Amino acid sequence: MALIVHKYGGTSMGSPERIRNVAKRVAKWARAGHQMVVVPSAMSGETNRLLGLAKELSPELSTPDLLRELDAIAATGEQVSSGLLAIALQAEGMASVSYAGWQVAIATDSAHTKARIQSIDDVRVRADLAVGKVVVITGFQGVDENGNITTLGRGGSDTSAVAVAAALKAHECLIYTDVDGVYTTDPRIVPEARRLSTISFEEMLELASLGAKVLQIRSVEFAGKYRVPLRVLSSFTPWDINIVEEATSGTLITFEEDEKMEQAVVSGIAFNRDEAKISLLGVPDKPGIAFQILGPVADANIDVDVIIQNVSHGGKTDFSFTVHRNDYARTVALLKAQVMPKTGDAQLTGDTKICKVSIVGIGMRSHVGVASRMFSTLSDEGINIQMITTSEIKTSVVIDEKYMELAVRALHKAFDLEQPAAA
Amino acid sequence: MALIVHKYGGTSMGSPERIRNVAKRVAKWARAGHQMVVVPSAMSGETNRLLGLAKELSPELSTPDLLRELDAIAATGEQVSSGLLAIALQAEGMASVSYAGWQVAIATDSAHTKARIQSIDDVRVRADLAVGKVVVITGFQGVDENGNITTLGRGGSDTSAVAVAAALKAHECLIYTDVDGVYTTDPRIVPEARRLSTISFEEMLELASLGAKVLQIRSVEFAGKYRVPLRVLSSFTPWDINIVEEATSGTLITFEEDEKMEQAVVSGIAFNRDEAKISLLGVPDKPGIAFQILGPVADANIDVDVIIQNVSHGGKTDFSFTVHRNDYARTVALLKAQVMPKTGDAQLTGDTKICKVSIVGIGMRSHVGVASRMFSTLSDEGINIQMITTSEIKTSVVIDEKYMELAVRALHKAFDLEQPAAA
Repeated sequence: MALIVHKYGGTSMGSPERIRNVAKRVAKWARAGHQMVVVPSAMSGETNRLLGLAKELSPELSTPDLLRELDAIAATGEQVSSGLLAIALQAEGMASVSYAGWQVAIATDSAHTKARIQSIDDVRVRADLAVGKVVVITGFQGVDENGNITTLGRGGSDTSAVAVAAALKAHECLIYTDVDGVYTTDPRIVPEARRLSTISFEEMLELASLGAKVLQIRSVEFAGKYRVPLRVLSSFTPWDINIVEEATSGTLITFEEDEKMEQAVVSGIAFNRDEAKISLLGVPDKPGIAFQILGPVADANIDVDVIIQNVSHGGKTDFSFTVHRNDYARTVALLKAQVMPKTGDAQLTGDTKICKVSIVGIGMRSHVGVASRMFSTLSDEGINIQMITTSEIKTSVVIDEKYMELAVRALHKAFDLEQPAAA
Repeated sequence: MALIVHKYGGTSMGSPERIRNVAKRVAKWARAGHQMVVVPSAMSGETNRLLGLAKELSPELSTPDLLRELDAIAATGEQVSSGLLAIALQAEGMASVSYAGWQVAIATDSAHTKARIQSIDDVRVRADLAVGKVVVITGFQGVDENGNITTLGRGGSDTSAVAVAAALKAHECLIYTDVDGVYTTDPRIVPEARRLSTISFEEMLELASLGAKVLQIRSVEFAGKYRVPLRVLSSFTPWDINIVEEATSGTLITFEEDEKMEQAVVSGIAFNRDEAKISLLGVPDKPGIAFQILGPVADANIDVDVIIQNVSHGGKTDFSFTVHRNDYARTVALLKAQVMPKTGDAQLTGDTKICKVSIVGIGMRSHVGVASRMFSTLSDEGINIQMITTSEIKTSVVIDEKYMELAVRALHKAFDLEQPAAA
């Protein structure tokens, strides 16, 4: 008998019929002797419906007071789905109770629409589990120290589930979603892409942030911080699938670097075509230049991803970075207005037709030549590399977006990802 | 400057456009110098949508655990409408904040789906009012001592508004609804029916309970208990109507029996065709017979309205009562199975084609002959009276339902209700 946390996304909770199936699945786990906590998202479409109503009344939802109201509105989606799931569980003969974030309580800071969990009170939940109840806890939301409802941002239910699992020291947190695990890359691009049965927390972090959008990035950080074993698995298997088979399906995100993992140098290939590249060529190479360029960008709340500054020559250097493609025009205008008047005769160039491709693998730490194999593979395909950044467990390149699929397929093959890692 | 509570029903909150109009109306009051608290219902249709989802999962929502979940689900409707109204107010330039019942807190007992308000903490609301904020408080809901969300039952938002007004000692509680006040009777039946500019709390109580469904009966009781001046007025007037005209429109429910009220012997005529009559003829006239008959009916959760037991003759008496027409068949079956085996050779008769017509007026206390004028009026129209009950301020008769309109029109005329009460 173990304490298990299940998390179900909006699609799994999308109708009374689907909620009934979730209830049957959870009941199966409970009847197998597990203490069960379930964290559901809002029914699919509900959060957008609610935000749509709010936006009809105030297109710009920007002030803290408006965001506070937005959170109170948006949080109802999970309150409804949680109540419905508790009812469905009771209809299946399972004692069950649902709690909104403030009832647990899940304490957060006051950053409305993007709050961070600070602590979770486990007293009430443990008391219910002790008497055999299945506890349903709303995802996505908490309460700040002044009793205001907060939400954690899109995908926040993943983070809620992991945080609850951490607070309860759960044996495992199972994230039921519409994919059946984490793949070496997107199967829509590489049909030979293979599901990973395990992946390290750090690799998952890189893959998630790079665009393999299986889990909210913060939930992975949280899992890493509190060492919560996390499993991503499909919610589309029949609810009455054998529980042992179910419990070992999907992809387990672990914290132990076992021998097997050492063998796989590269675990996956991520890509992202939402970015745009901006370069300032020939800026003075002096202390503070990076801040001088990126300070105004940060002040405008524009996220910067890749940042590259190369060695200087003749007291000048080239400074390049990428932003989300939607922020490209705004960033260029901002640089021209606020930065370039102070950078002498620097020239601005930009390109929105780029993409970023990354290889990720914890084995890169101890294997030399991984990056160079990446570069040679791209070279063999005639793909020009525009920017390179590296970290301990990933190497990313920026290339022309028209070569993205070609690059991903070539790299997938070059690193033998269609084969299971040697045992 | 006064503290004013506004309550808006689901129709008034039915769309973003309507919510915007409510916000404009409230902003007008606030700009006129009033401290404003607003209690909205859920957007029309929302509560039924939520209950429908729950019923798909469990057709019988009967146990306390199920009702607890139902309350958590249903309460979200008001949380959404309140948040939207606060956003709309801010879009109108008014500082505003919304609170769910538990945030105020509105403390209730634990009777899920029909909870009763026990106390309201006014600290948070007063602090917001003091700094010029319009405070929006969810109707229909509260929180019990264990932190569970409760709801007050259908129409509970009226009660929430009155309770909030009582707790804040508001100058007046204005209930905006889809009628423009309380009428002497239903204008669909008597075109000459007249809107009452004032009505006493006790008369309103009788009229509300008798079928003039303008306000939830419990809200009127609450207003009476805490002496909250209550005004029923139309939400369909343009929001920019002159505020003095608006503040004196509709019907004011008062607690002062001024001279003017004394003059109107009868204030209104109520009617109800949802009832059915059941008689047990020739039951033994002995102590406990009423309980013996009605005990099983009450145990089956069947509401009984009129109850009549006349003097006995020969040790036998006739016992009659009315129930909701939907409960008629069940009640008859229950009497046959559980009661009649113990009441000797009593005979059961019943009639579903009846109606109840009542005259209500605080002036009946001090005017003799009011009831007899009612009876003679009905007699003049050839209408046979089947049952009569009287209280201090009302007289009700049960008659054949086919005469209902005729009776109401004749009584309306007989008591000069089409004329304003003499000043």
